[in-house]
Amino acid sequence: MQDVYAVIMAGGSGTRFWPLSRRVWPKQFLSLAEQNESLLQATVRRIRGLVPSERILVVTSERHSGATRQQLPDLPPENVLAEPTARNTAPCVAWAAAHVSARNPNAVMMVLPADPHIGDEAAYRELLTLASKAAADGGLVTIGVTPTRPETGYGYIEAGAELGDGVTKVQRFVEKPDAARAQEFVKDKRFLWNSGMFFFRADKVLEEYQRQLPDLHAFAIGYREQASASVAQSYVLARYAELTSISIDHGIMEKAQDVRVVRGSFGWYDIGSWTTAWELAPKDADGNAILAEASLVDSKNCYVRANAGKLVALIGVEDLVVVDTEDALLIMPRERAQDVRRVVDDLTKRDAKKYL
Amino acid sequence: MQDVYAVIMAGGSGTRFWPLSRRVWPKQFLSLAEQNESLLQATVRRIRGLVPSERILVVTSERHSGATRQQLPDLPPENVLAEPTARNTAPCVAWAAAHVSARNPNAVMMVLPADPHIGDEAAYRELLTLASKAAADGGLVTIGVTPTRPETGYGYIEAGAELGDGVTKVQRFVEKPDAARAQEFVKDKRFLWNSGMFFFRADKVLEEYQRQLPDLHAFAIGYREQASASVAQSYVLARYAELTSISIDHGIMEKAQDVRVVRGSFGWYDIGSWTTAWELAPKDADGNAILAEASLVDSKNCYVRANAGKLVALIGVEDLVVVDTEDALLIMPRERAQDVRRVVDDLTKRDAKKYL
Repeated sequence: MQDVYAVIMAGGSGTRFWPLSRRVWPKQFLSLAEQNESLLQATVRRIRGLVPSERILVVTSERHSGATRQQLPDLPPENVLAEPTARNTAPCVAWAAAHVSARNPNAVMMVLPADPHIGDEAAYRELLTLASKAAADGGLVTIGVTPTRPETGYGYIEAGAELGDGVTKVQRFVEKPDAARAQEFVKDKRFLWNSGMFFFRADKVLEEYQRQLPDLHAFAIGYREQASASVAQSYVLARYAELTSISIDHGIMEKAQDVRVVRGSFGWYDIGSWTTAWELAPKDADGNAILAEASLVDSKNCYVRANAGKLVALIGVEDLVVVDTEDALLIMPRERAQDVRRVVDDLTKRDAKKYL
Repeated sequence: MQDVYAVIMAGGSGTRFWPLSRRVWPKQFLSLAEQNESLLQATVRRIRGLVPSERILVVTSERHSGATRQQLPDLPPENVLAEPTARNTAPCVAWAAAHVSARNPNAVMMVLPADPHIGDEAAYRELLTLASKAAADGGLVTIGVTPTRPETGYGYIEAGAELGDGVTKVQRFVEKPDAARAQEFVKDKRFLWNSGMFFFRADKVLEEYQRQLPDLHAFAIGYREQASASVAQSYVLARYAELTSISIDHGIMEKAQDVRVVRGSFGWYDIGSWTTAWELAPKDADGNAILAEASLVDSKNCYVRANAGKLVALIGVEDLVVVDTEDALLIMPRERAQDVRRVVDDLTKRDAKKYL
């Protein structure tokens, strides 16, 4: 099999998991469902065996590059690409493509978010292999997950004609649907969840950048031509903030010329909020997910998380999320998880930086 | 006016205000409604001017005598009586009566719980003076509070014939009523809340002990005859655990021969639970009582309390009590405040002593 590089996108800022995630310690560094490894560590662990450490790149923010290197001590330090500013995923993939193509232009890049939950890792790895192979001849490949519920929180992919070997043409990408359309999608075999995992040869994706996002293409080519690592870093610092800020989905995949999808089921969850954390965590007979020392009286379907040495007592409450950290405590009904951002906004407005 | 001694009963064990109150730091040491003084300190402050420090006695448990002396540095240390075990209030009053009668047999004792909230301190002090005077001729006097709501959490006093000077005979003491009877009581001028404040001459109450609780009488007389303070303390240690454990209400007042009541309104609250703490605390426009740094989104009628430096964020919750301490956190609807004891029981059963 051809050279495969993994590019892990770990640029999260961590608003939705406040107060556990902070500016200095966002979601990808946390253990949310698993107990002993962070989401980022789990993502890297799963691809070991498919991709050697020296071909795993992680793109993260400058602020988080130190912690990223600490969490992944096996990776060569220069494989952690530190973005000076957050410009969404298209610049981050262009930069990674420049890196990969400098080593091997027709190597396949598997681009993976740092933070999904994967329930069936064996099935997942098989699918990664299948998708990497499907990308070897030059197409842009994505993984579509067979929907198991009418989820309105994910984007969808409509699959088109079969191309053989489990690969299908992508008809179109579909934005997050309303509840009625999500109900139709889950019954219609053509519709798949967009996992945000992409596979393409470095040279081929750079061709798409040239066609669709020429400033990012110029940035990537220029980067590849820098004489040394330190000069290259100055090059990035000088230019990154000016690059077009757009997602790889919207900027490249949606209008690319040859986009394919491989489909599968592997217990995939986008851990998007404390609600998902509750869904994924082991629960007691009353539906409580308790990651803390606790005393529960007449309480059901709660998610409780606290540091070691802290006792959490709940009496007569249901469907609450309780996240306690050393200096901040969050309490809300599970269904309000999308509103955590309102607390973060409030703290930002009050300039209460120490809690952010 | 005759010598008046104050006897403050501060033997609380603190279950109902867990996790703020602990075995080592019960309710009377806490600031619950006021911010800068504990309930015990407030009780002592209110009677300054009526009773000099050397005539204020505080009865507390051995475990809490050190903290009691620290909180009340003006009191002579020997005025803090340290009970070796908790035996309810009748033994504690007998012991205090022995103390007082050794100094002056017909001095009046005002017996006050350490932990009520008093809204109108001037009216309260007038009533204390009136009750002390009413006790000077030998009767046992209690303060009855004019009910302002059909409270089922308090005992009641049924007043009888007028005796003049604002004093009424006590017809009978009534246990905590059900909701229907409480509704009747609040409409019927004869019924008053039992404040648990009692006034009697030391010699007269000891006569009642002799008649009703002879073992406690013998204990008090024997104590008075000890040659020195250190011998007296050994005497208490050897006998206290064997004394009849009963309240002064049931053991003495209910069957005493001449019991009178003075009535008044002075914003009295028995701070019996976190619910009362919410009722008494200042609130924002949404009914939230916030004794913490907080960020509130769509939240109403909550009581929130945390240490300095801790931020509490609430999203979309109502009527919650949230009490956060360094090592324990309690969350419950306000109406479940009576069930805090179930958490304490659970922790006791699990031998989780460090949280008690």
